Amino acid sequence: MALHPDRLLPIEAEARGIARELFASVEKLPILSPHGHTEPAWFARNEAFADPVSLFVRPDHYIFRLLYSQGVPLEALGIPDRNGVPTNTDNRAIWRLFAKHWYQFRATPSRIWFEHALESNFGIAERLTEANADSIYDAIAAALPDPRMRPRALFDRFGIEAISTTDGALDSLTFHDEIARSGWPGRVLPAYRPDAVVDPDRDAAGFAGRVEQLVALAGTPLSWRGYLDAHRARRAYFKARGATSTDHGHPSARTENLPAAEAAALFERVLFGGHSPEEADRFRGQMLTEMARMSLDDGLVMQIHPGAWRNHNRDLFAAFGPDKGADIPTPTNFVTALKPLLDEVGNEAGLTIILFTLDETAFSRELAPLAGHYPALRLGPPWWFFDSPEGMRRFHETVTETAGFYNTVGFNDDT
Amino acid sequence: MALHPDRLLPIEAEARGIARELFASVEKLPILSPHGHTEPAWFARNEAFADPVSLFVRPDHYIFRLLYSQGVPLEALGIPDRNGVPTNTDNRAIWRLFAKHWYQFRATPSRIWFEHALESNFGIAERLTEANADSIYDAIAAALPDPRMRPRALFDRFGIEAISTTDGALDSLTFHDEIARSGWPGRVLPAYRPDAVVDPDRDAAGFAGRVEQLVALAGTPLSWRGYLDAHRARRAYFKARGATSTDHGHPSARTENLPAAEAAALFERVLFGGHSPEEADRFRGQMLTEMARMSLDDGLVMQIHPGAWRNHNRDLFAAFGPDKGADIPTPTNFVTALKPLLDEVGNEAGLTIILFTLDETAFSRELAPLAGHYPALRLGPPWWFFDSPEGMRRFHETVTETAGFYNTVGFNDDT
Amino acid sequence: MALHPDRLLPIEAEARGIARELFASVEKLPILSPHGHTEPAWFARNEAFADPVSLFVRPDHYIFRLLYSQGVPLEALGIPDRNGVPTNTDNRAIWRLFAKHWYQFRATPSRIWFEHALESNFGIAERLTEANADSIYDAIAAALPDPRMRPRALFDRFGIEAISTTDGALDSLTFHDEIARSGWPGRVLPAYRPDAVVDPDRDAAGFAGRVEQLVALAGTPLSWRGYLDAHRARRAYFKARGATSTDHGHPSARTENLPAAEAAALFERVLFGGHSPEEADRFRGQMLTEMARMSLDDGLVMQIHPGAWRNHNRDLFAAFGPDKGADIPTPTNFVTALKPLLDEVGNEAGLTIILFTLDETAFSRELAPLAGHYPALRLGPPWWFFDSPEGMRRFHETVTETAGFYNTVGFNDDT
Repeated sequence: MALHPDRLLPIEAEARGIARELFASVEKLPILSPHGHTEPAWFARNEAFADPVSLFVRPDHYIFRLLYSQGVPLEALGIPDRNGVPTNTDNRAIWRLFAKHWYQFRATPSRIWFEHALESNFGIAERLTEANADSIYDAIAAALPDPRMRPRALFDRFGIEAISTTDGALDSLTFHDEIARSGWPGRVLPAYRPDAVVDPDRDAAGFAGRVEQLVALAGTPLSWRGYLDAHRARRAYFKARGATSTDHGHPSARTENLPAAEAAALFERVLFGGHSPEEADRFRGQMLTEMARMSLDDGLVMQIHPGAWRNHNRDLFAAFGPDKGADIPTPTNFVTALKPLLDEVGNEAGLTIILFTLDETAFSRELAPLAGHYPALRLGPPWWFFDSPEGMRRFHETVTETAGFYNTVGFNDDT
Repeated sequence: MALHPDRLLPIEAEARGIARELFASVEKLPILSPHGHTEPAWFARNEAFADPVSLFVRPDHYIFRLLYSQGVPLEALGIPDRNGVPTNTDNRAIWRLFAKHWYQFRATPSRIWFEHALESNFGIAERLTEANADSIYDAIAAALPDPRMRPRALFDRFGIEAISTTDGALDSLTFHDEIARSGWPGRVLPAYRPDAVVDPDRDAAGFAGRVEQLVALAGTPLSWRGYLDAHRARRAYFKARGATSTDHGHPSARTENLPAAEAAALFERVLFGGHSPEEADRFRGQMLTEMARMSLDDGLVMQIHPGAWRNHNRDLFAAFGPDKGADIPTPTNFVTALKPLLDEVGNEAGLTIILFTLDETAFSRELAPLAGHYPALRLGPPWWFFDSPEGMRRFHETVTETAGFYNTVGFNDDT
Repeated sequence: MALHPDRLLPIEAEARGIARELFASVEKLPILSPHGHTEPAWFARNEAFADPVSLFVRPDHYIFRLLYSQGVPLEALGIPDRNGVPTNTDNRAIWRLFAKHWYQFRATPSRIWFEHALESNFGIAERLTEANADSIYDAIAAALPDPRMRPRALFDRFGIEAISTTDGALDSLTFHDEIARSGWPGRVLPAYRPDAVVDPDRDAAGFAGRVEQLVALAGTPLSWRGYLDAHRARRAYFKARGATSTDHGHPSARTENLPAAEAAALFERVLFGGHSPEEADRFRGQMLTEMARMSLDDGLVMQIHPGAWRNHNRDLFAAFGPDKGADIPTPTNFVTALKPLLDEVGNEAGLTIILFTLDETAFSRELAPLAGHYPALRLGPPWWFFDSPEGMRRFHETVTETAGFYNTVGFNDDT
């Protein structure tokens, strides 16, 4: 370091010249971040970030999954256990451990992000090593209390025009209301993510209780009809607070479009138990089509993030719970899976459904041809593991010729 | 525009120099087009193309599928409905609509083709926009009646040595005969495409009738034996008119090699009804092996185009029928699917079976290893969505190291 | 030729400069070859290679599969038949045939290797053609008896620090013992490859006999317990002779972790007959987990090479037996298949399991995310058809961003 300003541009001189021009033409544009994975509490409270480890290590499963793969126990990194208790609270020791392993991030997008963050926010132009771990820790820790390092200041400095958080269907959106009341003009919008009240397999013991809470919030009866009405009510609640989209993380892209009586019977089974895994899957599939129909009514853009096997590591999940870097992509079929939904709403030009994938083979074979035909479909940018220079290149190489630029949705950070 | 002469060559100077030399060495070679998708009537009648819309918009599902994906109804583009009635006959209005959306074709092969056609045939070196839509329409319309714009003149100007059309098994090949009688020396050859009399699911209500017509044409009995003999007779009929190949568009690459009695029983079932989808699929699979055996006898090269889910869009199909840009590729397995056929004829060095795919994952995993081993197999060039600069690059990157150049068949336009 | 020293480096000047520096920094490093496919007898006996055909044509299925695909019968190449009898013993005639077809290897890694071998070992800087076939044959034949062309001299000249052979579980490792006794300091290590005593479908008629031989060698009873103990004993035998790894070539990546009683019952069934293909597959899956547990005890690195359909060509297999270029990759799932094994040992940082694949789609979707999380997993380099410039490029483009360099294992020749 210092980081080369052309570090992500082509090496060939003429191509680089063109890339520089293109980059210059977009570099200063405001950021519209529809899937920002930020906490609304940050912007509501505008508190300083606590320390380098809570900022850069503990919350980032991209960071600690790679450390774990290289033999670093999650306990040593202070990752909270199943009950939320941090397993190591010595932040400086954690930082040193992180620094010692930093060279293992060579060639990863995590390194690109982290070094960019160090240099552009903290003016640190050294590569992190065991030797300089303490001095870099101190420099970050010293800078964090600065008012210019608080969430709202960063929001402004980064040129964010609007950012969308991701919020459960049961969320009261208190922080969004606080932001609105505060007079601060930053636009921090909620997005409706109903997975926990849609997926009978997600934290299964609590599913029925969460559905009861959903209908209670909406004041609707505990029936299939009432359940759908409750979703409508919650979507309206979110929309009144600025939401423009919903988001759905499902194990597959399966959709269903069952007759109402069949759907109602399925609802009873998944709610009051005794359902098979196949029935849970069918229910999730039915709910994607229901959500699409609601989007047709209320205009919320629908985002589908399918194809992750969540919590693949049995023992790690038992000890540390979800979101610990152990979610693994699986082969994902879209052509068969989406047929019921597309038969229902695929020809609606007024509806926007954004498809994401963790199975890149679907890009050229299925997703680009689908998005290059159905008016309701758009393709989301490369997601998760593919939110990276090579991933973006492959996305454009396999998608753009068939779907064009205008059936994709541009930038969508996931960080 | 004007279009850059190096627009499809590498940007790096040394690589570009090599590419220029290679291109110069092939640029003037005559075109042998084994799968040209042209109408034999064009060359038989040699009439002028009617107008810009019938030439460039109405027949091209690459064009209107993308417009449709961006919210343009097919009615507005004058696409004929299910009964063949054009839904909009105001060609100038259609052209303006097309021009208005032309920017949405950025980065697509359609844009490459269309702008190449405009410049090289009509001398139009402007990019189509709403503003110049009328003047470009007028320029094309004015040029079309010119004798140099008629099919035979284009055939000569493009340096075509031979072109193969694609013709149903029941086709009388009248236009091919007319061409032969006309004294015009252009070689326009038929290809035997028996899908409609081989696939019980294609326009299913008419299947039995078409098979009856097939045996009637050949004067063979309506039996499994007679049906096979009828294929032999029709192939001979095609071959006598110059055919060098057959072509087979199947939902999958499945092949079968059933004992004769079992095949005969299956024939009875698919013909006289009551068959399951699985049996229809098995019958198609059996017919690929039968066709391969016939190719071994009569020397016709066999082309297999598998893996498209035809007419994926239910409502669009109901309104507008097939070939409306709604055919979507599906995962295609070749290793298991082709085993029965390969056990039967795979070791025949005198036979040529050309495999195409819409599932690019099969290139490096299955197709290149198969073609790099079995004497009867060759790989067709990148097809359909992949008949594009990036598609061709991926084809060579994933195929050539394993199969070499000599197990591929070179150029094969699909336009 | 002469071969360009930069022939595998990027064409762009700045990139090439960087590549040259990187290559210079590794070019002279000693070779550690963990999967060398060399015969221990070569180094034990140190005899001269017999003739150009036995050296370059007859043993190389990469060479003769491509010739076969282009219509050259295996008989004409002198490939031994099912009983090991060479079908053509006129080496000069075989060499001429090979030379006549050499141009068909354009763009293949075989050409890169062969021409590199000719130039760097024999000083032959001409391209092989029909015209120079005899003179090149003579030049190679004349050089082979030279002491500098013998296996041990080549071992030294190539800078090999250690090479691992691949040896069946029943192998006595006589040649390794001979090498050890000879006083020659070259390190030629065995690797434990138990496929023939683990896979009930491999040369099925002899399976029970081989298992009996295994327990006899180890002096353990013919029971599930005794069978596992026999593996332990043979692994110890191999380890005592320098082995550092085991190797497993399975049709799929399936693993199982059955309760001991169930595994014992399955052992009885696959051993004493009457088992289904599914049971054979389950047994192979169980044995991968057993082998992983043993690796945890004895420290041998475990290599898994899954996903080849062996002997796909029925008639060729009947005439010539296995390893004749007719092994074809198949789609391979790792996420589901490895779950039982990973639940058992995936979190063991002291264990190393190296995964290979012939299904490149698994790299970005499954293998990089798995290796980028589980401490026990590492990814092997591009294998077999993908041990090639394009294959290596795709490997790094699809693996490195997610798994980093340190979850891969670097160089692993397979020649």
